[in-house]
Amino acid sequence: MTDTPFLTVDVARLDTNIGATAARARATDLQLRPHAKTHKCAQIAQLQLDAGAVGLTVATIGEAEAFADAALTGRRDLFIAYPLWVTEHKGARLRALADRIRLRVAIDSVDGARRLAAETADVDLEVVVEVDSGQHRTGVDPDQAGVIARTAVESGLRVVGLFTFPGHGYGPGDARRRAADNEVAAISRAADRLRDNGIDPVVRSGGSTPTIEFAGTEALTEIRPGVYPFNDAQQVELGSCDLDAVALCAVGTVVHRTGRRIVADTGSKILGADRPPWTSGFGRLLDAPDARITSLSEHHAVIDYPRDDDAIPELGARVRVVPNHVCTAVNLVDHLYAEAADGTSVRWPVIARGANS
Amino acid sequence: MTDTPFLTVDVARLDTNIGATAARARATDLQLRPHAKTHKCAQIAQLQLDAGAVGLTVATIGEAEAFADAALTGRRDLFIAYPLWVTEHKGARLRALADRIRLRVAIDSVDGARRLAAETADVDLEVVVEVDSGQHRTGVDPDQAGVIARTAVESGLRVVGLFTFPGHGYGPGDARRRAADNEVAAISRAADRLRDNGIDPVVRSGGSTPTIEFAGTEALTEIRPGVYPFNDAQQVELGSCDLDAVALCAVGTVVHRTGRRIVADTGSKILGADRPPWTSGFGRLLDAPDARITSLSEHHAVIDYPRDDDAIPELGARVRVVPNHVCTAVNLVDHLYAEAADGTSVRWPVIARGANS
Repeated sequence: MTDTPFLTVDVARLDTNIGATAARARATDLQLRPHAKTHKCAQIAQLQLDAGAVGLTVATIGEAEAFADAALTGRRDLFIAYPLWVTEHKGARLRALADRIRLRVAIDSVDGARRLAAETADVDLEVVVEVDSGQHRTGVDPDQAGVIARTAVESGLRVVGLFTFPGHGYGPGDARRRAADNEVAAISRAADRLRDNGIDPVVRSGGSTPTIEFAGTEALTEIRPGVYPFNDAQQVELGSCDLDAVALCAVGTVVHRTGRRIVADTGSKILGADRPPWTSGFGRLLDAPDARITSLSEHHAVIDYPRDDDAIPELGARVRVVPNHVCTAVNLVDHLYAEAADGTSVRWPVIARGANS
Repeated sequence: MTDTPFLTVDVARLDTNIGATAARARATDLQLRPHAKTHKCAQIAQLQLDAGAVGLTVATIGEAEAFADAALTGRRDLFIAYPLWVTEHKGARLRALADRIRLRVAIDSVDGARRLAAETADVDLEVVVEVDSGQHRTGVDPDQAGVIARTAVESGLRVVGLFTFPGHGYGPGDARRRAADNEVAAISRAADRLRDNGIDPVVRSGGSTPTIEFAGTEALTEIRPGVYPFNDAQQVELGSCDLDAVALCAVGTVVHRTGRRIVADTGSKILGADRPPWTSGFGRLLDAPDARITSLSEHHAVIDYPRDDDAIPELGARVRVVPNHVCTAVNLVDHLYAEAADGTSVRWPVIARGANS
């Protein structure tokens, strides 16, 4: 028996989640380009491609290299959805990638576009402009997208469209719906600015797991959700899914019990420490929806149960803990333990773990 | 030039920090057993041992295995400061370790003590009882320590004392001093309970980076700080150190700038996502004490500067970002880039990265 803590994947639920989002994309005529930063795992990427994904999204050149190296069948088409500052060395890495696979990259500034162009002359890259739809992270105001796109084209880049990440959809109340509305408005406006500059925004990419339910099917051509194969405690608390749609959890052991409080060995070094203010704790228990992780340190998850009852696990018992944010949990381990419905388990390597640059 | 983001260590500052804490321990006649979960790095462990540490503290069997395998000179003495639930497999791992090095383990329950005893019969282990000094995580009420210690002895274990972690010293105001006072009270009381049961508490171990300044030198025999070789943004904000004593930072690149806001590529996958409510943000900038990381996602640190001035870095500039909690940052990378005063840099492997079990 594997020593705790470790991350386990329920493959039946994973299949269901991948199938459901693929079906949603087909039904709404949106191309699906899943964000592979969530799983960093070739086996899961293959399931997504087999279900009809047009390619993968990644966050870094390192992730792109890992998936380019993986023995995947299907379209070898990667989008690095990040406004890279392309140094000479990063330029060389992009050129090497573009020789092997179809590659799309991002810009969100005039200077960034010129830098990219300087390092990738004579390389066939698709370029998209990142638009800020309200998260106020990277991306430009929609009205600036035309100038940046035109500069890029004048620098020799092949601009094919736009993308945005409506990350402010991660919030309470109707944040998901409002962010999806913002996404439509921002992409539509930026698309007009590209057209004003004679550039056809063929690619209009958006979406995130919490917002794709409301994704604007007229404004967008593509969605890039990441979390949906697994789901996580954040998605449960946002209302994007139910607990029984969560396909990944950390298996831990109860090492301490005092009254209605237990401590499991699933600390922040396996769950990740993400804890937005709108969440109810540092994660959830798959088998105890009312329990809450009230504090978290590196190797201790302090879990409070609301009532005295028989369901409070005893010392030495195993518990299944759902991370708040699955992307950061997966990045902490070298393998996922993929459990089939018949109880057998295989190890899936996290091939892009730590591929931050 | 290494692609960003990566973690760099200022070796001169590291040496200073290691020397200062070693000197403090000597001056107060406390044994120093640094917690190696912070750095997970043989080179830094060696510096600590060379400076007089009596051994190392670790959090997991996996970390103990990594340091037992490392080619360290000095006393090979490891303390797993965690109330392990010792399964048959973990028992076998402990036995294998005890064959190779001097090993100390922890208990905090009668059942846990019996489990440990059942799996480690005829193995020479030091056993200490974990006491709760106010953090309310693991550890027992001081008055229960005697019963647990006696059960352990009756089960055949060799109980040598007590330990506590005053983790509630991580807080605003005078939390550090109060937690150190609680530590003295808890350890003193638990020591009396061991003596009541005929057990000499030879080892009375406490301490943490923010509390060692106030550590009770009568009550304690040993301190186990972890963060002090590096320091981090939390320690700066707690008042444990100044920014110029921070020896580790993430080097990132500015990928976006809008007004007084920049975005660097040092996201939570390199900094960690720890963000206690009493901190002023998700980390600090080594070269801009007034700037704050106001939001953090996996590959984006959004940094706000309070004033328009020349010091706001331009697109493409490199910035040095101090993680809130250095232990979780180090655990995200395979190597630290150790920079000597002459500007040369070597890679130090993070040998126990991900060793959670």
